[in-house]
Amino acid sequence: MNTVVANAPLIIQIHEADNVAIVANDGGLPAGTVLPNGLTLKDKVPQGHKVALVDLPAGAPVLRYNVPIGYAVETIEAGRWVHERLLQMPEARELEGLPKATVAAPALPPLEGYTFEGYRNADGTVGTRNILAITTTVQCVAGVVDFAVQRIKSELLPLYPHVDDVVGLEHTYGCGVAIDAPDAIIPIRTLRHISMNPNFGGEVMVVSLGCEKLQPERLLPPGVIPISDERDPNAGLDVVCLQDNEHVGFMSMVDSIMKTARKHLERLNARRRETVPASELVVGVQCGGSDAFSGVTANPAVGFCADLLVRAGATVMFSENTEVRDGIAQLTARASTPEVADAMIREMAWYDAYLKRGSVDRSANTTPGNKKGGLSNIVEKAMGSIVKSGSAPISGVLSPGERLNGQRGLIYAATPASDFICGTLQLAAGMNVHVFTTGRGTPYGLAECPVIKVATRSDLARRWHDLMDVNAGLIADGEKTIAEMGWEMFQLMLDVASGRRTWAERHQLHNALVLFNPAPIT
Amino acid sequence: MNTVVANAPLIIQIHEADNVAIVANDGGLPAGTVLPNGLTLKDKVPQGHKVALVDLPAGAPVLRYNVPIGYAVETIEAGRWVHERLLQMPEARELEGLPKATVAAPALPPLEGYTFEGYRNADGTVGTRNILAITTTVQCVAGVVDFAVQRIKSELLPLYPHVDDVVGLEHTYGCGVAIDAPDAIIPIRTLRHISMNPNFGGEVMVVSLGCEKLQPERLLPPGVIPISDERDPNAGLDVVCLQDNEHVGFMSMVDSIMKTARKHLERLNARRRETVPASELVVGVQCGGSDAFSGVTANPAVGFCADLLVRAGATVMFSENTEVRDGIAQLTARASTPEVADAMIREMAWYDAYLKRGSVDRSANTTPGNKKGGLSNIVEKAMGSIVKSGSAPISGVLSPGERLNGQRGLIYAATPASDFICGTLQLAAGMNVHVFTTGRGTPYGLAECPVIKVATRSDLARRWHDLMDVNAGLIADGEKTIAEMGWEMFQLMLDVASGRRTWAERHQLHNALVLFNPAPIT
Ligand SMILES: [Ca+2]
Ligand SMILES: [Ca+2]
Ligand SMILES: [Ca+2]
Ligand SMILES: [Ca+2]
Ligand SMILES: [Ca+2]
Repeated sequence: MNTVVANAPLIIQIHEADNVAIVANDGGLPAGTVLPNGLTLKDKVPQGHKVALVDLPAGAPVLRYNVPIGYAVETIEAGRWVHERLLQMPEARELEGLPKATVAAPALPPLEGYTFEGYRNADGTVGTRNILAITTTVQCVAGVVDFAVQRIKSELLPLYPHVDDVVGLEHTYGCGVAIDAPDAIIPIRTLRHISMNPNFGGEVMVVSLGCEKLQPERLLPPGVIPISDERDPNAGLDVVCLQDNEHVGFMSMVDSIMKTARKHLERLNARRRETVPASELVVGVQCGGSDAFSGVTANPAVGFCADLLVRAGATVMFSENTEVRDGIAQLTARASTPEVADAMIREMAWYDAYLKRGSVDRSANTTPGNKKGGLSNIVEKAMGSIVKSGSAPISGVLSPGERLNGQRGLIYAATPASDFICGTLQLAAGMNVHVFTTGRGTPYGLAECPVIKVATRSDLARRWHDLMDVNAGLIADGEKTIAEMGWEMFQLMLDVASGRRTWAERHQLHNALVLFNPAPIT
Repeated sequence: MNTVVANAPLIIQIHEADNVAIVANDGGLPAGTVLPNGLTLKDKVPQGHKVALVDLPAGAPVLRYNVPIGYAVETIEAGRWVHERLLQMPEARELEGLPKATVAAPALPPLEGYTFEGYRNADGTVGTRNILAITTTVQCVAGVVDFAVQRIKSELLPLYPHVDDVVGLEHTYGCGVAIDAPDAIIPIRTLRHISMNPNFGGEVMVVSLGCEKLQPERLLPPGVIPISDERDPNAGLDVVCLQDNEHVGFMSMVDSIMKTARKHLERLNARRRETVPASELVVGVQCGGSDAFSGVTANPAVGFCADLLVRAGATVMFSENTEVRDGIAQLTARASTPEVADAMIREMAWYDAYLKRGSVDRSANTTPGNKKGGLSNIVEKAMGSIVKSGSAPISGVLSPGERLNGQRGLIYAATPASDFICGTLQLAAGMNVHVFTTGRGTPYGLAECPVIKVATRSDLARRWHDLMDVNAGLIADGEKTIAEMGWEMFQLMLDVASGRRTWAERHQLHNALVLFNPAPIT
């Protein structure tokens, strides 16, 4: 990548073969500006938008990341603004004949000696937070659980100083849904696996209504989280069921929840952080509210950091189906085995069919904000999104809602790109640190796991000084290299995993758990 | 209906042609019990479950509500427990050749002189509460809005004593969705119309992120709720956009929301209740957590009350597609015109196709709790659900998310049966009082509208004494008639509409807004 650094004007060309570059200056650049390469702008070009570096005849491929992000619909002269209406989007790559595991794994020497302070769990995972989670079988109980959580926070939590928080795992599933439909496995296993997230220490408690479709035994079947307590075989099912006869009046329901919470809080409170190797990190990365800088600053730095994590033996998940679809050939080539490539293809094919059922395709991904931010279409967005995955071989693939089962290294966790749904599915997969890059800006957060938010531009980082944890805009400003920023993120992840609070945690800002349910509602 | 009243045993036969009746006694009845009609029970029959009144040969129709709810799979002798495994469920009625508007409207003399104390709105609707609603374009802003709502409640609301509450209209839509898919109109218009609910007095305020797919102008286009304030043409768009340059730091976002809230609170606080006719009621009825008593006590009383409401010139909506599907012939016959019948058929056909896309059918509706409560299948459940609609002609049909537009009388608002989704869609349709019947029990509530909860059994009403607003179990106990209970509900609706708080309101218990989005996620 050539980054041209100057007071003004600034343009960024990603690959030497590219015939467009983006304007980096705040506020864009006016027509007539002479660029560092000698070219004169023929149009005003907004920040993050593309300028043609050479004359592009009609039909010529417009190259960014050395990939055709579209074809010129008319002659575009050097110096003109290459906006979305000048580009004809390429067709999606067919899923036949893809290269499989053809790229030799780059030399990524092991990285040793890095550690963090985490909570070791009985199942071998490591938590970065010590949270009491109250899982729920159905939306029906949400009001009661909300009420109880407020009381637990104010009355009980102060008595258990080693417990970080109490979280009601509210969701909209559990009844009024076609629970035996083929695709219902996705929301069900998502809820199941979220309950098993490392940050809950295996001490999740369960609140059920009683008559719902998603019964506790179906949510948490034997072998998952024991809802009959092995330590106390006479205790019966460790589920607060609101319809039980013992509940007389609303307050008795709240009392039951609080009484059960106390048992779990006792155990959680006895836990202490201990030094564990960095290989216990399970990092989920995603981007949201993306702009043209996402693929130039924040995402490449995340990608560099992803390689560091893989070198340290940790697990990194990247996701967002509609944002990798146009780079599928790169990814299947990078798969560690043909089987992993086949799993990637299976996920893409499933998603293509899912979108088609709803009469749309991958191009439904892009937002007004993306386009305003300079991303012309999903192909350009995808290229900037995929760089979060770094350069390691892809060693595994998870279907939506599946949980890691010993896999390490770089994993493709297949999810929609929707920020809340991707975050929810990465929680289910077992994430203990979340990294979220944003260009337009979003106050995103999760109650279940720390979220490190990375700004793509210094302007956003300055304005949202108490929401953005990292300013990757320093890369475009020429003040940091991608490698420096990647190492900084790596260190910050270890700090956050050890207990350092992110901005979202300090404000207690978080979004809803949002399930991916491709099956019908009844 | 013949209700056999005795200390014990109690059975309830709905229609004289029925060949089964249900056992009403708490705890059911043991084998050997002699019933009031002289029949001896051959099996133990649980409460709410069916007993054969005559010998049923294999293949015979099992009649309840004078409708075949199934066919005997073997010979069933009189006195035996007719459980779900003894019934073969009938096929769904084809949607061709249905009777249309063939039933003469019953004589329902006008009911005059009933009033309540409501808030008249500029658009002609009447609110039953005076609530500041903060509508949101996207889930991204939910954390910030939550934070601001807490501050408004504690710092501002005490200064505006005539305002009942402040509610953040959080939802999971707005971005990461295929917003141009054909079915996306459903969630979009639902959000739009919820903002127009009569309980918000036209004073809804809007919080947006900035880069989301569902832009404020798309959520609230001209002619809906003016987001450019006509009273102050220099004020610009009345939208708090978090990505605006003016927002420096998280607290500046919260301050913006609070500043805007203050303006709306001023205006809402100036409003007063006034006497309005009962015809201004817009009552949404639904059932959830149903048992065999739902169709015997609570739902028939709601049906009687629905007729009173129609006689008073009010609007009553019933819903729940999968619970009317098996009674479609009754309903098209009861339509006031062939056009209304056609609209009913259109909704059923759409829903059949929607379920089929997901590889299920209407039978996916029933829950473990339904079956435990004595409802063998969806046909039996549907017959007990439809009685909520009373006997008036059906005068209109709304598609999911559509809003009433001057229609009065009995309306079919097509929604899934899911409690939260049905409630959310009835809010969008313009409901100002919600009636919810339950047999198994659910602590259901809405923040946006009072919910009157009706227990189908005295046992539930006793145990959940501070959650259930009405005990329709008194009908099965022989202490009240359906008509008496219907009149009591009618009076309670007027009281609640005038400001009397329901149990859910007293505890501030409410469920999430849950959108019906049949379109894909991206
Ligand atoms: Ca909440
Ligand atoms: Ca993304
Ligand atoms: Ca995303
Ligand atoms: Ca129902
Ligand atoms: Ca319902």
